[in-house]
Amino acid sequence: MEEFSAGSGLSALAERDSTITKERLLLSGLTHSAPAAPMQLSRQTSITPGLRYKNLGKSGLRVSNIGLATWSTFSSGVTEEQAEQIIVLAVDSGINVFDLSEAYSGPRAEIELGRILTRRAWKRSSYIVTTKIYWSTRSDERGLSRKHIIESVKSSLTRLQLSYIDVVIVHKSDPMCPMEEIVRAMHYCISQGWAMYWGTARWSPVEVMEAYTNCRQFNCVTPIVEQTEYHMFCREKTELYMPELYNKIGVGLMAWSPVSIGMPQGKEDATAQLFARASFRNKYSSFSWTEDETVNKESYSWMKDRIQPEESRRQTERIRELNALAERLGCTLSQLIIAWCLKNESVQCLLLGATTVDQLYESIQSLQLVPKLNTNMMTEIERILENKPTRPPMISTLALR
Amino acid sequence: MEEFSAGSGLSALAERDSTITKERLLLSGLTHSAPAAPMQLSRQTSITPGLRYKNLGKSGLRVSNIGLATWSTFSSGVTEEQAEQIIVLAVDSGINVFDLSEAYSGPRAEIELGRILTRRAWKRSSYIVTTKIYWSTRSDERGLSRKHIIESVKSSLTRLQLSYIDVVIVHKSDPMCPMEEIVRAMHYCISQGWAMYWGTARWSPVEVMEAYTNCRQFNCVTPIVEQTEYHMFCREKTELYMPELYNKIGVGLMAWSPVSIGMPQGKEDATAQLFARASFRNKYSSFSWTEDETVNKESYSWMKDRIQPEESRRQTERIRELNALAERLGCTLSQLIIAWCLKNESVQCLLLGATTVDQLYESIQSLQLVPKLNTNMMTEIERILENKPTRPPMISTLALR
Amino acid sequence: MEEFSAGSGLSALAERDSTITKERLLLSGLTHSAPAAPMQLSRQTSITPGLRYKNLGKSGLRVSNIGLATWSTFSSGVTEEQAEQIIVLAVDSGINVFDLSEAYSGPRAEIELGRILTRRAWKRSSYIVTTKIYWSTRSDERGLSRKHIIESVKSSLTRLQLSYIDVVIVHKSDPMCPMEEIVRAMHYCISQGWAMYWGTARWSPVEVMEAYTNCRQFNCVTPIVEQTEYHMFCREKTELYMPELYNKIGVGLMAWSPVSIGMPQGKEDATAQLFARASFRNKYSSFSWTEDETVNKESYSWMKDRIQPEESRRQTERIRELNALAERLGCTLSQLIIAWCLKNESVQCLLLGATTVDQLYESIQSLQLVPKLNTNMMTEIERILENKPTRPPMISTLALR
Amino acid sequence: MEEFSAGSGLSALAERDSTITKERLLLSGLTHSAPAAPMQLSRQTSITPGLRYKNLGKSGLRVSNIGLATWSTFSSGVTEEQAEQIIVLAVDSGINVFDLSEAYSGPRAEIELGRILTRRAWKRSSYIVTTKIYWSTRSDERGLSRKHIIESVKSSLTRLQLSYIDVVIVHKSDPMCPMEEIVRAMHYCISQGWAMYWGTARWSPVEVMEAYTNCRQFNCVTPIVEQTEYHMFCREKTELYMPELYNKIGVGLMAWSPVSIGMPQGKEDATAQLFARASFRNKYSSFSWTEDETVNKESYSWMKDRIQPEESRRQTERIRELNALAERLGCTLSQLIIAWCLKNESVQCLLLGATTVDQLYESIQSLQLVPKLNTNMMTEIERILENKPTRPPMISTLALR
Repeated sequence: MEEFSAGSGLSALAERDSTITKERLLLSGLTHSAPAAPMQLSRQTSITPGLRYKNLGKSGLRVSNIGLATWSTFSSGVTEEQAEQIIVLAVDSGINVFDLSEAYSGPRAEIELGRILTRRAWKRSSYIVTTKIYWSTRSDERGLSRKHIIESVKSSLTRLQLSYIDVVIVHKSDPMCPMEEIVRAMHYCISQGWAMYWGTARWSPVEVMEAYTNCRQFNCVTPIVEQTEYHMFCREKTELYMPELYNKIGVGLMAWSPVSIGMPQGKEDATAQLFARASFRNKYSSFSWTEDETVNKESYSWMKDRIQPEESRRQTERIRELNALAERLGCTLSQLIIAWCLKNESVQCLLLGATTVDQLYESIQSLQLVPKLNTNMMTEIERILENKPTRPPMISTLALR
Repeated sequence: MEEFSAGSGLSALAERDSTITKERLLLSGLTHSAPAAPMQLSRQTSITPGLRYKNLGKSGLRVSNIGLATWSTFSSGVTEEQAEQIIVLAVDSGINVFDLSEAYSGPRAEIELGRILTRRAWKRSSYIVTTKIYWSTRSDERGLSRKHIIESVKSSLTRLQLSYIDVVIVHKSDPMCPMEEIVRAMHYCISQGWAMYWGTARWSPVEVMEAYTNCRQFNCVTPIVEQTEYHMFCREKTELYMPELYNKIGVGLMAWSPVSIGMPQGKEDATAQLFARASFRNKYSSFSWTEDETVNKESYSWMKDRIQPEESRRQTERIRELNALAERLGCTLSQLIIAWCLKNESVQCLLLGATTVDQLYESIQSLQLVPKLNTNMMTEIERILENKPTRPPMISTLALR
Repeated sequence: MEEFSAGSGLSALAERDSTITKERLLLSGLTHSAPAAPMQLSRQTSITPGLRYKNLGKSGLRVSNIGLATWSTFSSGVTEEQAEQIIVLAVDSGINVFDLSEAYSGPRAEIELGRILTRRAWKRSSYIVTTKIYWSTRSDERGLSRKHIIESVKSSLTRLQLSYIDVVIVHKSDPMCPMEEIVRAMHYCISQGWAMYWGTARWSPVEVMEAYTNCRQFNCVTPIVEQTEYHMFCREKTELYMPELYNKIGVGLMAWSPVSIGMPQGKEDATAQLFARASFRNKYSSFSWTEDETVNKESYSWMKDRIQPEESRRQTERIRELNALAERLGCTLSQLIIAWCLKNESVQCLLLGATTVDQLYESIQSLQLVPKLNTNMMTEIERILENKPTRPPMISTLALR
Repeated sequence: MEEFSAGSGLSALAERDSTITKERLLLSGLTHSAPAAPMQLSRQTSITPGLRYKNLGKSGLRVSNIGLATWSTFSSGVTEEQAEQIIVLAVDSGINVFDLSEAYSGPRAEIELGRILTRRAWKRSSYIVTTKIYWSTRSDERGLSRKHIIESVKSSLTRLQLSYIDVVIVHKSDPMCPMEEIVRAMHYCISQGWAMYWGTARWSPVEVMEAYTNCRQFNCVTPIVEQTEYHMFCREKTELYMPELYNKIGVGLMAWSPVSIGMPQGKEDATAQLFARASFRNKYSSFSWTEDETVNKESYSWMKDRIQPEESRRQTERIRELNALAERLGCTLSQLIIAWCLKNESVQCLLLGATTVDQLYESIQSLQLVPKLNTNMMTEIERILENKPTRPPMISTLALR
């Protein structure tokens, strides 16, 4: 085990390989094929094969193409010691991005990550912390405001014991708060030295453009990233609109999916729900569903019940085909799903999450699967998915006369 | 009493209901009708019915539609303990705005409010403090200036023991100080983190527009609110001009009236004076009269003497009619006057003040009166008031030839 | 003496009136008339009659129309105790401006003034400190630069024990340093909170305009004042060009003259030199001579020798006439000279200096002389001076064809 | 020796003159002439003859026309005591620029210089420290970014124990990092007070123009200097393009060459390599080679092997002629090369380096050689070098039709 745990006291991991198959992704109920053995590729002492560093958006910040979503890592059921092992595996693998989210884990994630970073004393310049500003339509601190943004950033810094956050991400735009106020507040945080960059999550492309326009108008620093859900069944925003934002205004993409971040309910549920929800979303489509709409057993059932029998049957069929494909590639379905996301060049950083070291290790291995996804393979996957997004045709106003 | 005083040690209030009628608004001298019993509606453990949160101006800051004007609360005759009980009642009722003014209470208000906030240790993000920059034409620190603004804000912060004020309000514009200097100084305070927003009080609409224009020219943060007097007999600015400012440049409205803030001379006087002054102002109209023109018994008499007998008679008649209306609605005249202000959608925050917990409680209950002010009722009030403001007709210069 | 020294422990001043005539301005050698008795007008406990507050330039900063030039006060020969008495007299008289200059007194002035201000603990908002950034063509820290400006301001703050300077004045422009660098550095000092305003000294009107233009281009705070020499024999810049700067770009005027600031060589010399130099300058005219061209006995003799006999004779005649006029007005020639400057509405603040309390007191009394300078009197002075400046006629380029 | 070492405890230098010839520049192998005796001109207690102060670029910062490149001084083999003696000689000679570079000496140079400056307690305003932001294409902290720039500047300040760096120089532009991000980060460092100015090193003229354009667009402080290699065999950028940048956008020039900075491998190698590389670069020309391409024996041999025999023969001939010229002037070849650079008025500061006091002393003496480089001499040198750069002719696109 020393290859990657050198100096990180991960002796508890010694027997991982023998136990890892126990926690395999089981698609029982939705899939008829037996779970494939996860791809066990060679371990590296240094950087994982396939791990690369990309500029996030058109900024100078270079992020690893996979980042660690700590959402599930710091959820209940994982001890701080286990969480630290997961963080260390990420660092040893060459991952330099830690993404935080209040949705599942609340302030605890920031506090624990702060303690781990302090304990490990890694050079501050060697890692990147991204965290989010949340707001709710329900609580009494409603909506975005300069006050809310500044209070949130200062609180995060205190909890993280850091002097700055690398990327502060505004989660959801607030239609009631003027964009000028938001971009000025983000610029303020940057000019105070509390943040290096800022980005958005769950914003529509038009909202991102509006933010950019306001930054230009008021000479503020522009956002560099939009964080969005992306996977085989949630493709439209990422594939149709994000490349345009990148090319025109330099806003990059951090992507995540229920499978990639390892939903805390257990991976089985995550994958199952992914597909169930995907079917459901065909009807009630929105740009993304997100972590604050926490999906519990009940809502999952609720969704399943609402999916048309015919659609449900076809979805089950698709999963069977994808499972077969994964088996041919010698990997699990989860690994295939992750590799398929990594294959998309627009995705500068795909967030992976895990509640165990093994789970993260297995997910990271997906990197080595990417080269196998050649044109033929991708074509086959498109054939199975039948959901390649297209932009609505431009109707000439002349034609309408 | 626990419903609203939970955790706030307001046991002294236990017998309030039995005593509250003693402090009833008496319009003796100006009104012939007996005072109506104040509306005693159901108390809520949480937020008062009718209390809502609105964005202040077109900012992201969400204020309760009633705020606490601490002007009279921290005046002499109220102990700090009593003041604290008033503050606690406000918070328990869902009010999140505390407005400070030097005019009556001077630095004492800031010092006492600061102590109460420190003692209570409410989350800083849960309440909003607005305070004012005053200047005088008499004292040796004449006029607005960068120096005066910065010194004032720093002093307020020290007295309040806060790291920032939510909205710093510039009270009166200074025709001798260039607008550029004012907006740059306010922007400076915001960029230093001493204030989140800024606003104005007693500025004419043209002055507010000039401030906005200067902000745009020099890339400074624009003001979000104008604080102004508004009640049944002071309508022009609020009804004719403020909506335009809101729509065009996002400047909202905090309103107050002698009745709503509970003038320290006692409520009877306040209401009486309100009407006397209203009559007087018909002749010597200005945009607003303000707290630094403190009205004492003498000046009140002076005004009363100058009111034409005919006008005085009609004003007395109007008050009798309004009293009758209040009786029909089961509330006091004060409550009717407050509810009538709250009915105006342009008023994002109406400031209430009180020297006793009962007085504040009674005022807050006006919220529940608002739904009763339906179209018929409003029409009747207009008929009684006979003062609906209208803009002077635009005269075509062609017509003048 | 208590009228003006209340609470300031100026008991040493008790016998001033009896001794003051000993230090009378003697124009021996240049004037044939006996020195007139200085005007001894009524003393006030509060503000001196004639003392008014004006906005400095078009800023909001209100300065007394006379300010204290501490240049000579902190020169050698005056003890810190005596200096403090002078400062106290100034404050008691209503003066709120203290002007510092390195030229004579160097860092000592700032250190001593800082100690006095600390000891007296006057409210920071009640007085205004102006100090200068000097540079030399001789020393190894040549010219203006961002580095030099910032180092200078920080050093002054340390010496003065203040958190900010009210107006930082850049003494001489540096043709080798780009104006952009200067205005950005001044803006930086203001945005750091080290200064409230900035101004210039010894800049030509075109240089001031260039600074203003650069401020507008780079969104920096514009200068509010030019400090310049002004007296009966140095009129051109102040009378012809400064009003235009004030009207167009809001740059005001602080004036001083060798007589008004009480040159350390003794008042007699100062006045004598003023006239000698004035004659000399008719030939070698420049916009102003300044404190760093310290005039000692030798250079004074040198100048005197170079003045044409005819010119010298006429100058002597003028002084005799002015002395006669002063006698008619019941004041000294110095007081007449100071009052004549104060009469000019363009002068928002005339700097007075003194090495003794009596000298300052006598100078301040000039304020009461201003109303006596009516149109007739001013016409007579113009007749004596024969130097009313006029702009060169505009030659139409058409006429040159 | 006291003339220049007064108060600096340089007693160890007492016997320098007798030993200095031992460390003479030997061009054995490339030159056939015996080394000339170095010019030993009169020593001055104060500023070295020929040493002048120039504004760096069109800024107000006045730098000595020679600066101390501490690159070799703080390399291994030189004790901190020896380094301090070199620094002291520089200061005593009137040099006010210390240039730092991580390339050879890494953080050690900053730490040692910081200790020396602290120990000596020279006035901060009397010297100028320039340091660089490096980035690598190899290490994991790849490229420029706001994060990298800010972390680098803060680290340098800590190591140097200074509150600010005079000029922060960005070494190499990063084509992957948007120019807006770089200029905003540099502006941020300046507005935080961490730097007074910024500049570039190894940027192409077009990149410098792009930086300038971005500064203008976003109202950021413009760079004032480009640091570049310049010597007899590397002339194009400095002679053809830098004057245009100076005239148009005020970017000045700090120059260095392997000879002037005293390459740590020993001066002989430096000069030899200079010529070898110069020959090589004729074919593989780029704008400059730099310190991070450290030239060791192997790469030198590699280069020598690739030089065409004919070219090598002519280069040897040129060196022989230059050596003869140096002999006629009574100086070494190194001194001639340095003086030739100093002769160029575009070079506002030529960086000299040394591993010994004698070496620096000898180099500084080159200043006295500059007046001897009259027109005839310069023409002769041009005849020898045969490499006067010319801009490619502008081809009219009309002519191409």
